[in-house]
Amino acid sequence: MREFTEDDLDDLAFGAAILGTGGGGNPYVGKLLARAAIREHGPVTIVDVDEVPDDALVVPSAMMGAPTVIVEKLPSGEEALAAFEALQERLGRRITHTMPIEAGGLNSTMPFTVAARLGIPVVDADGMGRAFPEVQMVTATIYGIPAAPMALADEKGNRVLLDRTVDNHWTERLARSVTVDMGSTALVAQYALSGRQVKEAMVPRTLRLATELGALVRIARERHEDPVAAIVEHLRGRRLFTGKITDVRRRTIAGFTRGEARLEGLGPDAGATLVLEFQNEFLVARREDAVLASVPDLITAVDWETGEPTTTEDLRYGFRVAVLAAPCDERWRTAAGLGIVGPRCFGYDFDYVPLEERAA
Amino acid sequence: MREFTEDDLDDLAFGAAILGTGGGGNPYVGKLLARAAIREHGPVTIVDVDEVPDDALVVPSAMMGAPTVIVEKLPSGEEALAAFEALQERLGRRITHTMPIEAGGLNSTMPFTVAARLGIPVVDADGMGRAFPEVQMVTATIYGIPAAPMALADEKGNRVLLDRTVDNHWTERLARSVTVDMGSTALVAQYALSGRQVKEAMVPRTLRLATELGALVRIARERHEDPVAAIVEHLRGRRLFTGKITDVRRRTIAGFTRGEARLEGLGPDAGATLVLEFQNEFLVARREDAVLASVPDLITAVDWETGEPTTTEDLRYGFRVAVLAAPCDERWRTAAGLGIVGPRCFGYDFDYVPLEERAA
Repeated sequence: MREFTEDDLDDLAFGAAILGTGGGGNPYVGKLLARAAIREHGPVTIVDVDEVPDDALVVPSAMMGAPTVIVEKLPSGEEALAAFEALQERLGRRITHTMPIEAGGLNSTMPFTVAARLGIPVVDADGMGRAFPEVQMVTATIYGIPAAPMALADEKGNRVLLDRTVDNHWTERLARSVTVDMGSTALVAQYALSGRQVKEAMVPRTLRLATELGALVRIARERHEDPVAAIVEHLRGRRLFTGKITDVRRRTIAGFTRGEARLEGLGPDAGATLVLEFQNEFLVARREDAVLASVPDLITAVDWETGEPTTTEDLRYGFRVAVLAAPCDERWRTAAGLGIVGPRCFGYDFDYVPLEERAA
Repeated sequence: MREFTEDDLDDLAFGAAILGTGGGGNPYVGKLLARAAIREHGPVTIVDVDEVPDDALVVPSAMMGAPTVIVEKLPSGEEALAAFEALQERLGRRITHTMPIEAGGLNSTMPFTVAARLGIPVVDADGMGRAFPEVQMVTATIYGIPAAPMALADEKGNRVLLDRTVDNHWTERLARSVTVDMGSTALVAQYALSGRQVKEAMVPRTLRLATELGALVRIARERHEDPVAAIVEHLRGRRLFTGKITDVRRRTIAGFTRGEARLEGLGPDAGATLVLEFQNEFLVARREDAVLASVPDLITAVDWETGEPTTTEDLRYGFRVAVLAAPCDERWRTAAGLGIVGPRCFGYDFDYVPLEERAA
């Protein structure tokens, strides 16, 4: 159990945006909201998964939708509470804890906004160990845990409850349509879990990992060391490419931000081209025709000097970035995991090869 | 209070399909479902609005979606109960009565399916005095009564609750997207009303009117009299046109059946052309460039000999039909009513002129 204050926000949001693999929401927006809530209501308690009672009622809080819209239609925090309340009424029990459903600049900090206002602790875990674009893409799905009942709320005052669904794919389908109607973003409460389920089915310690990443980059900068190398080392990852963004194609479609960025190599990669394809998050990195990394492994783009992560809606011509990749949670590499988040789940016609094997 | 048996179904469904103005669902499907429920559970009690206690909890039951899909994806009746149960759980009170939300071959009989299974009475009223395609298009909206909370259910096992919405237009928007996801049809429970609200805000005696229309046509046929004339007289309407259908354009789009039918005149109308435009229901009848009738007045197409009403998804080349029109409920003719169901609400660029004035 530890206390989380305003001062901890920068490191967390920074590191979570690295784990957010281009998605997970804008860290600046996430920090603004959480800072306001903590200033008004005081610090938030973080608990580790083994500190959560088995009979706790844990409900992740998150923003869902197209990142390009999130930065234009800022949430107030009220929508997150509305979604929480709708689900709590449906469950007929008090929610005892919240947590992130994914790692990301916004979605790792959003639970603190809710926790500060409600006076409940945040569990140090998430449902992916990274960010993914769709509702069913959480480790809980591997364990057969339903996303429904799921509540969605918007800034206009609409509240929708996906009361009972066939499976988590149906929850995604219905939630996506509702999100599009709500203006391509919604605040959601889903995957109500017991403490026991959190321990079994979620990815532990992602808040700690994100905070460590943020701190490592901060310290590397202070010491004039290479922040990018610090990230790669801590995640046991690889630096895939260094280059300048020369083209970004991006569409907001069906509630997602989809597109690709093209990079021309610099330094050791001069003369080469890298393409990053994304659906909210980076899905695949291709150098010429060779896939260098793919979902479910983490692909992230950071400023080549400062290590500052870039979300897919922020990619711009001229940015000089280092593209990094890191291994995903081991459960994603099982047949069950790849059936939920493997390349074929995103429409690709190739099988997953772990990053380490591609590199070898 | 009166008993409704299997034997009453034919007249009701027939007459309701006339009031359904081309929509309201297929009467054959509606009869099949209600007959099965009444055979299994016994007759249903119909009560008049003044027999409903002020503190009753009345919930209309209906099918929502594209009529072209309803005839292919037949409901089992379970979905209607699932929607009812979801709303009842949300309201935390037992639903005491059901009723139709609109007149129509399916939607006037669907409440009997639910009522027979649950052992509750059906109120003799509806929310339109005809059929309209969208959720907010009920007289209740004039009185500021919310459609939400609204429950939707499908045959696959999905249940969605529009828990709280900005207004009835938002309920329509969200419900339409969910309906499309559910396969372009859904069973819904909406507009939970007190007995007092039913008396004030709904259209009374539409079950009686539909049954009378059905009986009049049946008797006219038995006596070799003109059934079409009997309908027109009973509705104080007009016979607009007699002709043969020569062309039907129809698309299932955004959860609606939209299109137009073209008729070549026969008999007194020989040489003339009538166009019927529809969105589930007939919206406008035009003879050459002249509008003969428009929403919210009732427009309906019946077999020119038998008086059998034709729904918009059943229109076919070669059908010989009489096109009839009849005045709508007076509340639809107020400024508030026309703001909900006037021609401009359907995208037309002309103002409503009552049928009687157009005829004069």
